[in-house]
Amino acid sequence: MSLIKEDEKRAFGDHTLFTRARALPRLSKVHQHFGADGIQRYEVIVVGGGPAGLFLTLLLSHHGLSDDSLLCIDAKPTQTVIGNADGLNARTLEILGTLGLHTNLQRDGNPFAETTAWGPAKDNPHLLEKKSQYPFFFSPARFEQGITIHQGRVEGVFRDDLRRYLERGVQYSSKLVDLKIDEDGDGEYPVVATIRQNGQDETFRTKYLVGADGAHSAVRGFMGVEQEGDITDQLWGVIDLVVDSDFPDVRRQSQIWESCNSEDIAGMVIPRERLSSGDYLTRLYLDMSVELSTADHQISVETMAAAQREKSREKKMKITQESILERAKELFKPFRLQVKDGTEVQWWTAFSIGQRLAKQFSVKDSRGEPRIFIVGDACHTHSPRQGQGMNVSIQDSHNLSWKLALSILGLNPDNTALLNSYESERHPNARDLVYFDKRWNQEGLSREEKFEDMKQFVLGCGVEYQPGLLVDRPQERTRSKNEYLNGVLLAGRRILNVGVKRYADGVIWDTHDDIRSDGRCSVLVLVGTDFPDPRGCSVATIQELCGSLVKRFPKGLVQPVILHPIPSPKFQWNDLPACVKEEAEMTLYNASPEVYSTYGVEPSKGAIVVVRPDGVVGLVTSLGEISQVYRFLQGFLTTTK
Amino acid sequence: MSLIKEDEKRAFGDHTLFTRARALPRLSKVHQHFGADGIQRYEVIVVGGGPAGLFLTLLLSHHGLSDDSLLCIDAKPTQTVIGNADGLNARTLEILGTLGLHTNLQRDGNPFAETTAWGPAKDNPHLLEKKSQYPFFFSPARFEQGITIHQGRVEGVFRDDLRRYLERGVQYSSKLVDLKIDEDGDGEYPVVATIRQNGQDETFRTKYLVGADGAHSAVRGFMGVEQEGDITDQLWGVIDLVVDSDFPDVRRQSQIWESCNSEDIAGMVIPRERLSSGDYLTRLYLDMSVELSTADHQISVETMAAAQREKSREKKMKITQESILERAKELFKPFRLQVKDGTEVQWWTAFSIGQRLAKQFSVKDSRGEPRIFIVGDACHTHSPRQGQGMNVSIQDSHNLSWKLALSILGLNPDNTALLNSYESERHPNARDLVYFDKRWNQEGLSREEKFEDMKQFVLGCGVEYQPGLLVDRPQERTRSKNEYLNGVLLAGRRILNVGVKRYADGVIWDTHDDIRSDGRCSVLVLVGTDFPDPRGCSVATIQELCGSLVKRFPKGLVQPVILHPIPSPKFQWNDLPACVKEEAEMTLYNASPEVYSTYGVEPSKGAIVVVRPDGVVGLVTSLGEISQVYRFLQGFLTTTK
Repeated sequence: MSLIKEDEKRAFGDHTLFTRARALPRLSKVHQHFGADGIQRYEVIVVGGGPAGLFLTLLLSHHGLSDDSLLCIDAKPTQTVIGNADGLNARTLEILGTLGLHTNLQRDGNPFAETTAWGPAKDNPHLLEKKSQYPFFFSPARFEQGITIHQGRVEGVFRDDLRRYLERGVQYSSKLVDLKIDEDGDGEYPVVATIRQNGQDETFRTKYLVGADGAHSAVRGFMGVEQEGDITDQLWGVIDLVVDSDFPDVRRQSQIWESCNSEDIAGMVIPRERLSSGDYLTRLYLDMSVELSTADHQISVETMAAAQREKSREKKMKITQESILERAKELFKPFRLQVKDGTEVQWWTAFSIGQRLAKQFSVKDSRGEPRIFIVGDACHTHSPRQGQGMNVSIQDSHNLSWKLALSILGLNPDNTALLNSYESERHPNARDLVYFDKRWNQEGLSREEKFEDMKQFVLGCGVEYQPGLLVDRPQERTRSKNEYLNGVLLAGRRILNVGVKRYADGVIWDTHDDIRSDGRCSVLVLVGTDFPDPRGCSVATIQELCGSLVKRFPKGLVQPVILHPIPSPKFQWNDLPACVKEEAEMTLYNASPEVYSTYGVEPSKGAIVVVRPDGVVGLVTSLGEISQVYRFLQGFLTTTK
Repeated sequence: MSLIKEDEKRAFGDHTLFTRARALPRLSKVHQHFGADGIQRYEVIVVGGGPAGLFLTLLLSHHGLSDDSLLCIDAKPTQTVIGNADGLNARTLEILGTLGLHTNLQRDGNPFAETTAWGPAKDNPHLLEKKSQYPFFFSPARFEQGITIHQGRVEGVFRDDLRRYLERGVQYSSKLVDLKIDEDGDGEYPVVATIRQNGQDETFRTKYLVGADGAHSAVRGFMGVEQEGDITDQLWGVIDLVVDSDFPDVRRQSQIWESCNSEDIAGMVIPRERLSSGDYLTRLYLDMSVELSTADHQISVETMAAAQREKSREKKMKITQESILERAKELFKPFRLQVKDGTEVQWWTAFSIGQRLAKQFSVKDSRGEPRIFIVGDACHTHSPRQGQGMNVSIQDSHNLSWKLALSILGLNPDNTALLNSYESERHPNARDLVYFDKRWNQEGLSREEKFEDMKQFVLGCGVEYQPGLLVDRPQERTRSKNEYLNGVLLAGRRILNVGVKRYADGVIWDTHDDIRSDGRCSVLVLVGTDFPDPRGCSVATIQELCGSLVKRFPKGLVQPVILHPIPSPKFQWNDLPACVKEEAEMTLYNASPEVYSTYGVEPSKGAIVVVRPDGVVGLVTSLGEISQVYRFLQGFLTTTK
């Protein structure tokens, strides 16, 4: 029964051996890598191969950009091997889930489960006692538990996937040494970038360039984008190690308070993933300020004199692996806490608590079209203790990727408007992040006060974009923040995953597996209880959607997903217009009353929901309003008729 | 914060960048690849790189065998690209789960959800009507739903993982051309195998050789192992394609009955995974006998004359892709069923229904030690329609791998006894399989009759080994088959996964993630309600386990897992003997009353359960009986004291 023929391999190998993202169609002119002027051209150059840059490159490659149109460079000689970021929150896992990239990270990561607080005992400040223990806070999400896992593993998952689309992968040891916009030379490829590799400089032209090159971003520097924000003289140390400890909560996320009168935090335990050696890794954060003479608090960057900066730098230089370990030993007394015999400290560093935000996230050409972008740490830096860095960075790229792809592939009628929405959506979000971080590091705030912020922010599920080209939302909002967090549909927020049952095969399905990060928009129709009455508004809506609306856009760019309240199999394909089976055979589901209620939709009324390629709801409207859906979509999708 | 140093990479890269299985310790003599006689030596040669051979190689590499000790060859030029097996049942997914290899297969596979039966209508035999629709039957398992997915994807997952352990991977285009046992030349490496690659023959010596080379096994042939069994002249066709059909249940597992008076099956629909093109694959099984003149039924292999075999072969030769498609079109009338426009048939073949079983699964040297084994299709062939082939094959290798590893690494006191248990456990299982298959293909059996068999067999969770060296079970059994299938502990059956809550960090955990396929044995103690009374039997048992028993075997070879009935955190580490935290910090869990009840254990009494490296329960005994545990384990594990 084993017949393997070479021609069959060619024909089917790609289809049968793994699951590959479906590229978007290309309506724009074919890209020519070699210009007549002898300069090589790309459509996008990504500077930086960390999580933000890799994820952006990965998404663009999924959407159809190939080796000669897409280049990702990194100045480092290799991927991140130790240290750096270590947290993936619920929203980031959801996003990775829409690409099927969550599975092995969840398998290997350490889930957040419980959090404790310890502090000096009231009657004996030399004794540490447990103040509280809670389950970790969750918000409704496809995967409720965030995880800790080494940044290098996240990069590894991205790189393994990228390798199936781009032969080159990330081009390491390549440094951006010059960058400018020059429209005169070629207005279509106006960005001119010079890259140094092996001591050789080469100049390239590209349509767009994205700086994902970290807190000290060269891209940001070349473009003269200023940062605003504060830095304090609070110095912290962070260390990754295998501990030998009898501290009872060393495997729980634990805070150690500074004194018995204050909840200010002097140290934190972050349990990490298991290593191949069988040992479990631990990250410790330790306030190192107490070790050093303290100076005045909160100095504005603009006014901070060079002398002061130098003083702070000097203090930071004094921090060593040994001083961090000493501080840990001291803080956890009377418990034992030391490096486990036979293991070595994996990584450590020292940092000042501070927040900085770039004043703009993009630079435009003379016609006002954004050509150079920054994402991730290049946009915003803040203290790492809430594990936000990698998450917000990945989410920046998730917001930008499809806008770039639609612009490049000719699937969008107005690149300037679409690309401007990156900054108008992500800059306010970064401002909130910086504010949240400042607030969290503020002394004197109670756990409960921080809790509300966290629910919205730390889990990443509370992000809300303002009305604009991509968010069609009436001004008034009728519900509380928490209701939207719990799943009530609101344009500007991500759509919550729900479990539904497919009509075609009875499989229980996650809606997020249809609303994939594949550059396409989904139109989700929650039909009403009149379904499947052939003269009812529900059937008329899905008929108009499947028979007409989806055909007015390039093939596959608008995907229908239909939820109905009738437990299958109470109707048959024959009862529905033929176009419904043609367009939505595998995306027609039974949704329970709870799903309607979670989404805040009356089963008697139903609703239409437009979901953007990044999983954010763009529009919520009534059944029958397909023309409103069309008006909204044609604002950023090219029509064919 | 980004500090990457080359020496750190060397030190930590392997530990931090991915999860790697922990090799077993080696107490035996170091293996020398180059013999004094100029002949290269291996410890294991695996012939065949299909699912059975690959899985065996993978497990042996996890256990510590490296490129110069382990060779896997395949006569084919490449892995399976299309066609062949397509089902993974609940038990196989569990097994892959103990290695973390299930994740992407579950993501990409098509879950079994519903099954239907159709047949000619009573009043109009030209009309097909639905006779029944059921949810697919499940038995309790970690992953209840089996999946369909192309065999090549399963091989791909194995190969990707294998690449991290063996540089060579599978050596393709390498054919076994001679095989014998010659103890005179070297009694330690008595198996002599000649392999042809690129037209060159080379002879190797090996300690053991495993034939995973399919139904027409060369290994079986060289060893002169006979097969018994029957073959019928029932001819079937199977075809993988993207269908264009208005048959309403084309995405459900569906049977088409031959006539309105009989439930005999004339065709089957097996919904398959989604392809990268976005299309969904379908497998069809079709009884092609009706197309050809039928001869007498059920011919014994032994008596089947050459002429008859020739006749059957001729008939099979007449079956073509076109005739299978014609038959499908006919059978599904009045519904449309054809190849979808723009796609091509992926694969098809024809087969006769029949069952064959090798009389022995191993060949011994002069001292009685098994040296050559066969696994998978080389042992047993049967009709593919229940999707058993790939599953039973993988399970053969799962049974054999740890026995080989313990023997080779000097971790077992009696190789002959341990290795003989492969045949004594797997041969009866294969006989049951063949019997089950025959029964299933028998005409006139009702769905309900088949159902009971299936629950035990098709899902793979009902396998039960007989008492012996590795199964210490009292003769009398006190419960029904179904109770054991539902989780009540019984030596000889696999242990059911349960969800428990870890004391150290509050994480909800699957016990199967501790009882990994890593070549180690687990001793699971379900402590009683006297826990944590320091004078009680429960604490005495876990103290004896952690403080004494585990130390009497090579380090890490016996792993304690402790379940307690007290919701955490009602006790503290301090309340327990120090050795418990030392040995079981991350394997001490709270188990709900339901877990005790599922396992059939009285919380007031508790129990000790020994789980073998393949997840099969070896012994169930009372708390306090650590000496019985020791006696059982030292039967197949080397002791150090």
